[in-house]
Amino acid sequence: MNPSTPPADDPGLKLSPCPPVEHANDGRVPLKLRRVAIDTYRENVAYLHRDCDVYRAEGFQALSKVEVRANGRRVLATLNVTLDPRIVKCDEIGLSMEAFAQLGVEPGHPATIEQAEPPASIAALHRKINGERLGREDFRAIARDIAEHRYSKVELAAFVVATHASELDREEVYFLTEGMIEAGQRLDWRERLVVDKHCIGGIPGNRTSMLVVPIVAAHGLVCPKTSSRAITSPAGTADTMEVLAEVELPIERLQEIVRAHRACLAWGGTAQLSPADDVLIAVERPLSLDSPAQMVASILSKKVAAGSNHLVLDIPVGPTAKVRSMPDAQRLRRLFEYVARRLGLSIDVVITDGRQPIGQGIGPVLEARDVMRVLQNHPLAPIDLRQKALRLAGRLLECDPDIRGGDGYGIARDILDSGRALDKMLAIIEAQGARPFDPEHPPLARHTFDVHAPADGVVTGIDNVQIARIARLAGAPKVAGAGVDLMRKLGDAVRAGDVLYRVYAEYPADVEFARAATERASGYTIGAPHQVPQVFVEF
Amino acid sequence: MNPSTPPADDPGLKLSPCPPVEHANDGRVPLKLRRVAIDTYRENVAYLHRDCDVYRAEGFQALSKVEVRANGRRVLATLNVTLDPRIVKCDEIGLSMEAFAQLGVEPGHPATIEQAEPPASIAALHRKINGERLGREDFRAIARDIAEHRYSKVELAAFVVATHASELDREEVYFLTEGMIEAGQRLDWRERLVVDKHCIGGIPGNRTSMLVVPIVAAHGLVCPKTSSRAITSPAGTADTMEVLAEVELPIERLQEIVRAHRACLAWGGTAQLSPADDVLIAVERPLSLDSPAQMVASILSKKVAAGSNHLVLDIPVGPTAKVRSMPDAQRLRRLFEYVARRLGLSIDVVITDGRQPIGQGIGPVLEARDVMRVLQNHPLAPIDLRQKALRLAGRLLECDPDIRGGDGYGIARDILDSGRALDKMLAIIEAQGARPFDPEHPPLARHTFDVHAPADGVVTGIDNVQIARIARLAGAPKVAGAGVDLMRKLGDAVRAGDVLYRVYAEYPADVEFARAATERASGYTIGAPHQVPQVFVEF
Repeated sequence: MNPSTPPADDPGLKLSPCPPVEHANDGRVPLKLRRVAIDTYRENVAYLHRDCDVYRAEGFQALSKVEVRANGRRVLATLNVTLDPRIVKCDEIGLSMEAFAQLGVEPGHPATIEQAEPPASIAALHRKINGERLGREDFRAIARDIAEHRYSKVELAAFVVATHASELDREEVYFLTEGMIEAGQRLDWRERLVVDKHCIGGIPGNRTSMLVVPIVAAHGLVCPKTSSRAITSPAGTADTMEVLAEVELPIERLQEIVRAHRACLAWGGTAQLSPADDVLIAVERPLSLDSPAQMVASILSKKVAAGSNHLVLDIPVGPTAKVRSMPDAQRLRRLFEYVARRLGLSIDVVITDGRQPIGQGIGPVLEARDVMRVLQNHPLAPIDLRQKALRLAGRLLECDPDIRGGDGYGIARDILDSGRALDKMLAIIEAQGARPFDPEHPPLARHTFDVHAPADGVVTGIDNVQIARIARLAGAPKVAGAGVDLMRKLGDAVRAGDVLYRVYAEYPADVEFARAATERASGYTIGAPHQVPQVFVEF
Repeated sequence: MNPSTPPADDPGLKLSPCPPVEHANDGRVPLKLRRVAIDTYRENVAYLHRDCDVYRAEGFQALSKVEVRANGRRVLATLNVTLDPRIVKCDEIGLSMEAFAQLGVEPGHPATIEQAEPPASIAALHRKINGERLGREDFRAIARDIAEHRYSKVELAAFVVATHASELDREEVYFLTEGMIEAGQRLDWRERLVVDKHCIGGIPGNRTSMLVVPIVAAHGLVCPKTSSRAITSPAGTADTMEVLAEVELPIERLQEIVRAHRACLAWGGTAQLSPADDVLIAVERPLSLDSPAQMVASILSKKVAAGSNHLVLDIPVGPTAKVRSMPDAQRLRRLFEYVARRLGLSIDVVITDGRQPIGQGIGPVLEARDVMRVLQNHPLAPIDLRQKALRLAGRLLECDPDIRGGDGYGIARDILDSGRALDKMLAIIEAQGARPFDPEHPPLARHTFDVHAPADGVVTGIDNVQIARIARLAGAPKVAGAGVDLMRKLGDAVRAGDVLYRVYAEYPADVEFARAATERASGYTIGAPHQVPQVFVEF
């Protein structure tokens, strides 16, 4: 292919040469900045025209990382070269949408571009690739360079794999976590006790935060909960909360809300907490790499940066959960405890039943319905979601020095049963900006289909991974009303033809994708009662 | 940033909604293919409009890999989403230039897009990341998926780092090499003896192939040399040969030329030889990872795929070469020998002096001048280039069963001195399509500046890496006439102010970049005679 051939789809298009510029552009004269309306996700891309003097003069190489400066700020980006002046003209630098936003200027603003120096911490990365142990300063430098987007995707992948393959020792995990905290903002709530709860993930429907937070806040604990959106799951807490209230709030608003109500349930993305984590996750997820070291650094850096000093951590264990055996769960618990102690964070690790999804609905609207039903003590409230939330809330309440060990669960139950948790939740929703939502008539997606039991028997397995996949194919979380509503749980007796679950989807194509997935594997196994896997977790 | 905000730089631009399509597009109805004039290098990118029904209906995720099908072919690409109908309209699929070319259709051709299945060999990659040893089938599957562009850049980086960190054993290197050969085309020259020479790289100016090939071909050996272009160096053999003749030739032309002249000197990129290697190199280079395993697999897979059965391999050793110690060179030699033997390739490894650049000129035109001077027995021909070429040609000649060990050098010298090598070279140039070139008046770049000795003394060091960097900043190889012309070599006496080397550049900006680099580090050290590093290599 000769790249100077004009695109044949648009024969009238003038591709070259560029109009002559008045001065010889020697690479220092600024170009005009342009926002190119392409969403490249977390990969910053800069676009130059092939006939741009700066491009011709600079020794830009394939896959090269460039630095674009404007307005006293800079972004690092991968360079793409175009022949199409409708994308960028010869006197322009284009930036993909997210990269453009980082500069905080108007289009047309002068900007310069030059080849980016390789990040200084690459030498430490190479030592890690070669199996060496790194020190505190190494991890500090790596976390800073990652947070500043100085690593290419290839370098990020190299870091993730190198720290996975030559496993970090626990002190290195601490250094990495600390480096990630230092590379971002850190919130200070000016409170003695700031509590939080977190789950390592992997269990669909597991929306306990939206119950634990109002319960402990109703008791008076400060719990400024910031959550993520779903990355590979059908809903994150932020997605589900967004069904009920605004979640993208400036940090000053959050502080007011927490002062007034002791708690919030917001999206954490606005606060630049552990930004290196966000960058790393974008690489770890497609590789399905979730090593214990990276999980601990990711979670604890976010929690400490968010200003928490007491954390209850939920580690679900089950055959299709992230952690699949009790010894693995115990090893992970010890690593969390070691790093938390070094960071001065009090942690209480709770190993929970991860054999199946929690609650009934999977997807933002369905989960919001379940949460509200639990808070309302509704007869259709899912019992397992209620029970799990009470146990976790009870553990969190016990960090109050006035509560005796073992009393937390009962106190949490009183708060929930009395309606105080519901009142607190409604106050938080009101404060964040309520959205109309009637749990009796949740705004579900238009199309549904049911998946039926193929035979008589007992539900002996529900595959967390497959159910999550089906809910995503049905449109969740992008379509809030899409998802899966489970009608049967582990141990339930079924007759052939009984509805196991109902799928909600908004678009016909989504219906087809989800249906095809259920036909390949429904996610359910039906068998004999003795085949139900044992609960190997005791609270 | 709200991604639905129209780009402010073009207020008249209609971004949405898309014109309604006549049928509900359920993801199976084809879109129209469009060539997007963006060069994304080796990363295929597909562009969809955000309001395209297919995009809305599919559960496309961040960083997702999609498969675009048209004309019975398919390409895998990373998905970018745009708001700008000038890039793609709602009923179009855009592809970046290289990806578009792979489908071999006209713009507007119907095409479908769907989420790509993760490549099957990812499971093996994960086992490698976890430090396991892989078998023949694993490497075969990995090489095939890589060659078919099924790996994302992140997955490629993971493979490169995992095979670097948990070092492959020598049988794994053999399996990888074999898998890479099988994943591409394989040439068959229908000759009993097909010879080749190769250097592992890292030494600027080292254009011995352009001398060795005509010498051994003049003797009658079949030597169909295919070379690469520079990736991180100031010139590859293909770049330098291109100064003298066409190098991008269809494989049928090459076969005719080799039948007529016993040899060619062409670019290897047209023949799809070990395509997995090309993909891997694009990731290894920016990481500066060049592990012995990857070097052996890369070089030997290309040579066997090119149909060679006898190879002379040049491993230069020196303080700024790729291999920096004799024990490292010996280890690398043994690995090459083991894998070559398993592949049925006869190999002769020659460890050479890599203390400094070879020859005088660095950059395509300057190197072509040096090569032609050696062939012409010109008084200004660089002696070191001549000597090294004769030694390597001699070793290659000795694979002729009629030549006694030790006689090769003398025969090579006779062929060169008699002008037979020049005649052969001129015949090859003519056959490939000669380009006008007068070695007495080489078409050098317009601007020059000299770098001078800072003091009296002797040249005690020339840094291969820094000299290569300066030549690249001056514009080589993109500007063929740019580069560095060395006036002094190791051991030469200099007076303060003597010219050490001259830099050639076409553009003022390149002059400035190169000059700034020479001011940071000239690449030369001047000292006392006893400080010249010893030649620790004996032929």
